[in-house]
Amino acid sequence: MRSPLFDRVAIIGLGLIGSSLCHVMRRENLASEVAGSARSAATLKTAERLKLCDRLYADPAEAAANADLVILCSPVGTYGALAGKIAPALKPGAIVSDVGSVKSTVIRDVGPHIPEGVHFIPGHPIAGTEHSGPEAGFAELFDGRWAILTPLPDSDAPALEQLKSFWERCGSPVEIMTPEHHDLVLAITSHLPHLIAYNIVGTASDLETVTEKEVMKFSAGGFRDFTRIASSDPTMWRDVFLNNKDAVLEMLGRFTEDLTELQRAIRWGDGDKLFDKFSQTRAVRRGIIEAGQETADPDFGRKHGTQRESAKKSA
Amino acid sequence: MRSPLFDRVAIIGLGLIGSSLCHVMRRENLASEVAGSARSAATLKTAERLKLCDRLYADPAEAAANADLVILCSPVGTYGALAGKIAPALKPGAIVSDVGSVKSTVIRDVGPHIPEGVHFIPGHPIAGTEHSGPEAGFAELFDGRWAILTPLPDSDAPALEQLKSFWERCGSPVEIMTPEHHDLVLAITSHLPHLIAYNIVGTASDLETVTEKEVMKFSAGGFRDFTRIASSDPTMWRDVFLNNKDAVLEMLGRFTEDLTELQRAIRWGDGDKLFDKFSQTRAVRRGIIEAGQETADPDFGRKHGTQRESAKKSA
Repeated sequence: MRSPLFDRVAIIGLGLIGSSLCHVMRRENLASEVAGSARSAATLKTAERLKLCDRLYADPAEAAANADLVILCSPVGTYGALAGKIAPALKPGAIVSDVGSVKSTVIRDVGPHIPEGVHFIPGHPIAGTEHSGPEAGFAELFDGRWAILTPLPDSDAPALEQLKSFWERCGSPVEIMTPEHHDLVLAITSHLPHLIAYNIVGTASDLETVTEKEVMKFSAGGFRDFTRIASSDPTMWRDVFLNNKDAVLEMLGRFTEDLTELQRAIRWGDGDKLFDKFSQTRAVRRGIIEAGQETADPDFGRKHGTQRESAKKSA
Repeated sequence: MRSPLFDRVAIIGLGLIGSSLCHVMRRENLASEVAGSARSAATLKTAERLKLCDRLYADPAEAAANADLVILCSPVGTYGALAGKIAPALKPGAIVSDVGSVKSTVIRDVGPHIPEGVHFIPGHPIAGTEHSGPEAGFAELFDGRWAILTPLPDSDAPALEQLKSFWERCGSPVEIMTPEHHDLVLAITSHLPHLIAYNIVGTASDLETVTEKEVMKFSAGGFRDFTRIASSDPTMWRDVFLNNKDAVLEMLGRFTEDLTELQRAIRWGDGDKLFDKFSQTRAVRRGIIEAGQETADPDFGRKHGTQRESAKKSA
């Protein structure tokens, strides 16, 4: 067993990402002590039952006190107030990071609270599932998924190295970029896909001519894929869109332009244009599979009827 | 082993659906003889190597000759010409069906060619993967997936019953509806999702500020889900959009209206509206899981890094 990277790590917020960090930190022996904090009594109780952390606190400042690494894992809209609360408790030389899906506004909201001598290095693991809450976490969540760090120009180099090692030992290769570029990249790879998925599921629930029951019954034709990311945590996603407005509106504008072109091709029966567009997109998936970010199995490796039953029998 | 339902079944087109039918017909002993036909020599050669059919023909009319059931499994744009070719060879009492994703135009294109005494009953199994071609098929594809039949007002009742039994023995529960209603239902559950997926993958490949490599690398945030259906067969999907224009444009209009509302909520920072919208969509996924059309496993049951390795070891 490798020796711990940190004496005490504080995880503020014990949802999918926070609880997964607790699991992987234990598996990899990343901290001598894991302190956890959550806003709701129910989450604290579940975390206690699951033994996610060595110590649990209702007050985030108590969790952060004496920690060498503090990671904010709650929705990004809570970060400003949280930073204000924990700031007085932070010990000199501590690292403060986060897992938020937006980085520029996090720097705006958290940065001013960070005391002299504490290292603030924002971060974002590109990992998740559609499930949320303290029971959703698992140690393998970060395996092979990129973690992006967006250090500030004056970020401490040894602290950055240590945080990089932390994520690598969680299973994540690390990429460094500016917060502004992060927010653009995520707007297209994550935020816009979520917006569109939420939107089409809404549209489909709201028809007079096709019942919701029919939508569910015949969803295997494509629709059900969209419902997965459209069942992600609504609070988290509200905060993402409120905090990455400009980049999301920019990407949405381009999406709509392109969709209008396809709409016109359908209206005028322009089969060549449709064929050309539909032929260009396979290569992107191949690239994602080659980059190790997706399974090559058909249908995401979903089990089909009898396969599912025989998998159950052999389990 | 149950006795065969048909003496001779002809499968015209040996892509994902056609080859899957060949596999399941063998497993379930649905036909004494399976005759196959494909347009391309390469497909015929692959079908021969895989022993998909008992007999293979370059000429669809030869495959259809003497068959009790003929199923068109090529892109819907080919159906009219195909029906013209096979019509003279069809034997009295035979059933002609198809698996096309659109039904009204199939009736328009195929119907006039069907001779007196032959039963034409259009069909559509709501099943598939993103892979195509004769090697993509597998016997379990239809397990638990609905097959929709859209008989005409004068369709022969015993023939309909027989076709229903065929699909049920392939693993599919059967739903009967009108062709017009089918086309509306599929426009929202399948056609619009594919259009949107193709579109966003196109938009993402076409940015100056974010490289295609970055899009692939960080796609686990949501985007990669869309690439699956955006790598479906371009010819098949061109034909779908050319043949279900009105219903797709109607659903697309509603989708765009709803998206514009979300766009406005983002622009004006209306967090309550975003939260409300994002909270309504989880129930739809729950319904799909309860209807047996989706896995309850997080992330479609995708294996994560170390899980993938240990699955390999145990395999």
